[in-house]
Amino acid sequence: MEKLKGVNLGGWLVLEKWMSPRLFDGTNADDEYYLVNDLPKEEYESRILMHRAEFITEGDFLRISSEGFNIVRIPVPYFIFGDRPPFIGCIEELDRAFRWAESYHLKILIDLHTVPLSQNGFDNGGLSGVCKWAQSSEEVEFVLSVLSRLSERYKDSIALWGIEIINEPITEKMWESMNPLERYKPRDKKLAEGSAPITLEFLYSFYKEAYSRMREILPEDKVIVFHDAFELHAWEEFFKTNHFVNVMLDTHQYIMFAELNGTAQELEAYIDYLKDLKEQIKTVTNYVRVFVGEWSLFNSYTAGVNTEGGINPTQKKFESKERMPADQLKGIYKQLWQHSIDAWNQGEGYMYWTYKLNIDTINDPSWYGWDSWDISRCLSHDWITIKK
Amino acid sequence: MEKLKGVNLGGWLVLEKWMSPRLFDGTNADDEYYLVNDLPKEEYESRILMHRAEFITEGDFLRISSEGFNIVRIPVPYFIFGDRPPFIGCIEELDRAFRWAESYHLKILIDLHTVPLSQNGFDNGGLSGVCKWAQSSEEVEFVLSVLSRLSERYKDSIALWGIEIINEPITEKMWESMNPLERYKPRDKKLAEGSAPITLEFLYSFYKEAYSRMREILPEDKVIVFHDAFELHAWEEFFKTNHFVNVMLDTHQYIMFAELNGTAQELEAYIDYLKDLKEQIKTVTNYVRVFVGEWSLFNSYTAGVNTEGGINPTQKKFESKERMPADQLKGIYKQLWQHSIDAWNQGEGYMYWTYKLNIDTINDPSWYGWDSWDISRCLSHDWITIKK
Repeated sequence: MEKLKGVNLGGWLVLEKWMSPRLFDGTNADDEYYLVNDLPKEEYESRILMHRAEFITEGDFLRISSEGFNIVRIPVPYFIFGDRPPFIGCIEELDRAFRWAESYHLKILIDLHTVPLSQNGFDNGGLSGVCKWAQSSEEVEFVLSVLSRLSERYKDSIALWGIEIINEPITEKMWESMNPLERYKPRDKKLAEGSAPITLEFLYSFYKEAYSRMREILPEDKVIVFHDAFELHAWEEFFKTNHFVNVMLDTHQYIMFAELNGTAQELEAYIDYLKDLKEQIKTVTNYVRVFVGEWSLFNSYTAGVNTEGGINPTQKKFESKERMPADQLKGIYKQLWQHSIDAWNQGEGYMYWTYKLNIDTINDPSWYGWDSWDISRCLSHDWITIKK
Repeated sequence: MEKLKGVNLGGWLVLEKWMSPRLFDGTNADDEYYLVNDLPKEEYESRILMHRAEFITEGDFLRISSEGFNIVRIPVPYFIFGDRPPFIGCIEELDRAFRWAESYHLKILIDLHTVPLSQNGFDNGGLSGVCKWAQSSEEVEFVLSVLSRLSERYKDSIALWGIEIINEPITEKMWESMNPLERYKPRDKKLAEGSAPITLEFLYSFYKEAYSRMREILPEDKVIVFHDAFELHAWEEFFKTNHFVNVMLDTHQYIMFAELNGTAQELEAYIDYLKDLKEQIKTVTNYVRVFVGEWSLFNSYTAGVNTEGGINPTQKKFESKERMPADQLKGIYKQLWQHSIDAWNQGEGYMYWTYKLNIDTINDPSWYGWDSWDISRCLSHDWITIKK
């Protein structure tokens, strides 16, 4: 089978302030939870509807397809069905995307990217600095109902490739290295109280329950995807002892995380890290098909920033230390791309984070280097080529 | 000198409902004049600011440059400086665009696309069905002040290629063939009263006045552009008897207009029309440099529509009669492209209308065929190639 060559449509139906800062103009909000809170109802509605209508359009699906990609991963929020006011649902946008994908021969992986009270405390979980979802049996049940409804709605679409149960739940290991409550400070300390990492035991059990409800609805050719919770090697027994039909493991691999864990800020170190990952992915394929559902060329070396304390994409304000000549930059990205693809293709392939960013690296030079998160720009810069 | 290979950033700072219909959702407005009127102030502001922030971004300038274009024509409204409430100015957006153009080695032609009370009664004049600007000496003076201020602000930018005095003023000839007050019905009949075509005599005199004020400010390497008012051959004496420095004539050539004037709905007829235009353009170059500042591959033959009564892009609802096989479509567009470029390059080159449209041809099939207005999609479809 052809490898997955995909992009994430990040920042479209699930907001991240750093990906679309103009949407947050004039508010103190760091995430959608507080964007709703800080704006009058009508203004929030106007902004969010315009953003959804303009950030990703039919033309983007056409371009993604014509560039040679075969799949898009679409992050969606838990309120997609419009049953969690004050948030505004976006199921019609997803419906439209399915018809675009059908027309332009793309597959879709639906990725449930947020849950009420958050599964990780990240800004992209929708509520910064809070991580309490797994503690609420009511909200766990709600999420299962969203997954069932998504399965029901799209089970017959030729464009549906699969559904990912939940994005980036955080366990103790990542909790310690990312320290989310420090990194994404909660605005409401009371609401954040009691936040804690999720246990692998909870996830094993939740994933089984979600799988069994979804598999009842979804035809066998649709993939059910489990995120690895940043623990690539914690799943051997899970997959060996359960008899799942057509499942895959999604692992997210950012150079930024490697740097957090001690990888030096230099090309050679990045390549070593990618070579090591290649072997790790190969090992995992012994018991489950695995793909890299998020990754990016972004790194602190080409961005010219010092990562002491770790890179935080939500607080982009690093003054550039030094700008690389364009040729050198291109050379580095080309090597990183090649080593990355080589590693990811030990598994089932990849989805880049992300297709498009609305940041302005010219008028706000502190964004210098961050354009490598945006694969549409990587293509325009000729840093990468997808087509054979 | 290299020929102009450009695109219009239509629908960005000057709205046209058919190019961005979602912006007009839930209103009865056909143009920006009534969008402001129909929406509460805060909602209009939210929508328009999001649209400006998202419809065209840095990534678009990068792509336009990387595709091989060398210039963008940017339509701007008369209220760009924010001195005509309730409209919201957009000079900061243009400032940002200049810095993008400088970084990505693109030139900019600023095109004053609208004036108060309108110069043509078109929807893209900003006020459908009204054409009274030239009758108001106060508003004529206001427009001259906008042109002076634009000249002053950008005269030193390396990205400024030129400024176009006024887009598509309409004379009696076009008034009769387009019948704008029928085609773009006025909402306020009283306001429309007294609307009339503009005389060539008025234009000769207004253009001279605008030229002299702008040339005082603009360095000689910046081009001052006159639109031909849809009368390509009305300018010989004007250019022969006036001693202008570095000026050009802009002519707009749409197959749609040719069809209005009797060109048959078939490829051969279109090619004949383009060959004839080639000769006409050659004639004009005897006394003035000329370029085609707007044109498009769109035609009623590939769109599968019957044009009896003329195509009206603002009322796109034609049910498709017939869809062409993709290969046939591509073949026709490639031929039209080649003959068009061949004609335009008798002059100084071209700017396509337009870079991007936010219409959904899949979920709203009555848009079938209209994607050829959108050159970013023409490129993705591989209908055309810009790079040598």
